[in-house]
Amino acid sequence: MKCKICGGPAIVQLPHYNMNLCKDHFIHFIQKRVKQAIDRYKMFSYNDKILVAISGGKDSVSLWYILTKLGYKADGLFIKLGYDHQVKPALDIAQKLADLTGRKLIIEDATRYFYGKSVFEAAKILHRHTCSLCGKVKRYLMNKATIEYGYDVLATGHNLDDEASLLLGNILHWQTGYILRSFPVLESTHPKLAKKVKPHCLNYEKDIKTYVDLLNLPYLQQTCPFSLGAKLPIYKSLWDNLEKYQPNAKITFYKGFLREKNKIFKIQENQPKLQECNICGYPTINQTCSFCSARISLKTKIEKLNS
Amino acid sequence: MKCKICGGPAIVQLPHYNMNLCKDHFIHFIQKRVKQAIDRYKMFSYNDKILVAISGGKDSVSLWYILTKLGYKADGLFIKLGYDHQVKPALDIAQKLADLTGRKLIIEDATRYFYGKSVFEAAKILHRHTCSLCGKVKRYLMNKATIEYGYDVLATGHNLDDEASLLLGNILHWQTGYILRSFPVLESTHPKLAKKVKPHCLNYEKDIKTYVDLLNLPYLQQTCPFSLGAKLPIYKSLWDNLEKYQPNAKITFYKGFLREKNKIFKIQENQPKLQECNICGYPTINQTCSFCSARISLKTKIEKLNS
Repeated sequence: MKCKICGGPAIVQLPHYNMNLCKDHFIHFIQKRVKQAIDRYKMFSYNDKILVAISGGKDSVSLWYILTKLGYKADGLFIKLGYDHQVKPALDIAQKLADLTGRKLIIEDATRYFYGKSVFEAAKILHRHTCSLCGKVKRYLMNKATIEYGYDVLATGHNLDDEASLLLGNILHWQTGYILRSFPVLESTHPKLAKKVKPHCLNYEKDIKTYVDLLNLPYLQQTCPFSLGAKLPIYKSLWDNLEKYQPNAKITFYKGFLREKNKIFKIQENQPKLQECNICGYPTINQTCSFCSARISLKTKIEKLNS
Repeated sequence: MKCKICGGPAIVQLPHYNMNLCKDHFIHFIQKRVKQAIDRYKMFSYNDKILVAISGGKDSVSLWYILTKLGYKADGLFIKLGYDHQVKPALDIAQKLADLTGRKLIIEDATRYFYGKSVFEAAKILHRHTCSLCGKVKRYLMNKATIEYGYDVLATGHNLDDEASLLLGNILHWQTGYILRSFPVLESTHPKLAKKVKPHCLNYEKDIKTYVDLLNLPYLQQTCPFSLGAKLPIYKSLWDNLEKYQPNAKITFYKGFLREKNKIFKIQENQPKLQECNICGYPTINQTCSFCSARISLKTKIEKLNS
């Protein structure tokens, strides 16, 4: 097995690209894919201030590492969704990465918005699905931090598997308002709404895992215990089955979509009219944003429980 | 387990419709789905003369049976693709169905176009993929028979699994010219090009199997030995995996497409300019149609082999 680039011994098989690579050329290749995505989809420039959302998983850890390596001004954002002892392993990793990259780590504490409760407890009290509330809180606080700390763009670690699966799910259910949102760049449409980008969108999840392992980057191994039963893993396993027969099915599908979407689809992106939340001032389609609404409900429920 | 309609004991579970049915109501239900497809997609009326392509498999057998049961003027067409001993089991079934329905069976012999060779032998001599040549021959002779015997429309047994899988495959590869052809009605665009319809398009393959088994209709059990390695079965197994989690995923996807396709897609159907083949006179995009071209190549190759 020979490296396609240098002819030396290859250690990584990439059937989806029909090639094998040695360690150095594989590492270079993964980094190049990030650079390609940034440039091709006009994500940001070297002058922009980038905030990378760090969960502690392989995707966000490698993204932050690669962006700094490529010379971008990228700081990290860690959102504490639970109590100190729950988030310590992830936070330790985020801090190690800050040391490694020599960049700033911003820490946002979600529990201070939820009267000291963790997001998981808040979901229980509100009788809400944990993933749904957690997603809402993360989106809100990522956006808020990007705006308030003066960053130009928010980058998240979503990889090709995430994006191809999300797109497939939206197509299988003809979620027409969401199909065109399956794009790795969401422009800002309001002064308080940050531009969002996904620079890992061309990298396979398994390749990112190989990358962090080869570089011995610290990352959380376990997946979120709440994500069981979520739909995305179903589509991911569909892709894995399909790629047994067509090794590049996922990347062909996703890149084809990115290239041709405006020629293929008539539908418009959901672009709801935004106003400012009457409590926090951040953009929302309602009078009060859903983040503030959740906080109000939670306060009422906690008061009831305590009375 | 109770029948959703009459409350009697149910014998068929239909998780994809979230109901169970007794034998009589299940049989009625499958027939009603065919009628719905005919009416909703404007396939044909009671005045039209319909030719049903009969392979001997459960789909075409049940389709012919149901169409005559619904009162349509539907005759059968059987295409002999191989030598007599190869096609006998299928032809016997087609003839039994003709007796059962009291309708005419037209038999077309493909071997007479291929200098006495079976389509499978012709493919070998031509170094062509069997499925590709066989598909071409069937499409050509089905169209020719429909036109020459004066039928208004050609009906084939394609079921929901076929159609949803074909559509999914076209989307996964962004075969934009073919996406909109995943419609159960293809109108005639030339006097020698028959209108084609798929009245079983709303019925699940497994339900059709239950239907023919419950009615003890004769049909070929084995699938075509040449279809191994074809792509459609891969997409079919993807759907089966998906429906373990979302029992109605397939029908939701396909009906959603049929309902919304003109709102969703900007792309146009491939509508190539047709001219008449300089040999047979049937419509083609080239001077000589691909059926006649294959015949010419075959003749040359056979002459070479015999010289």
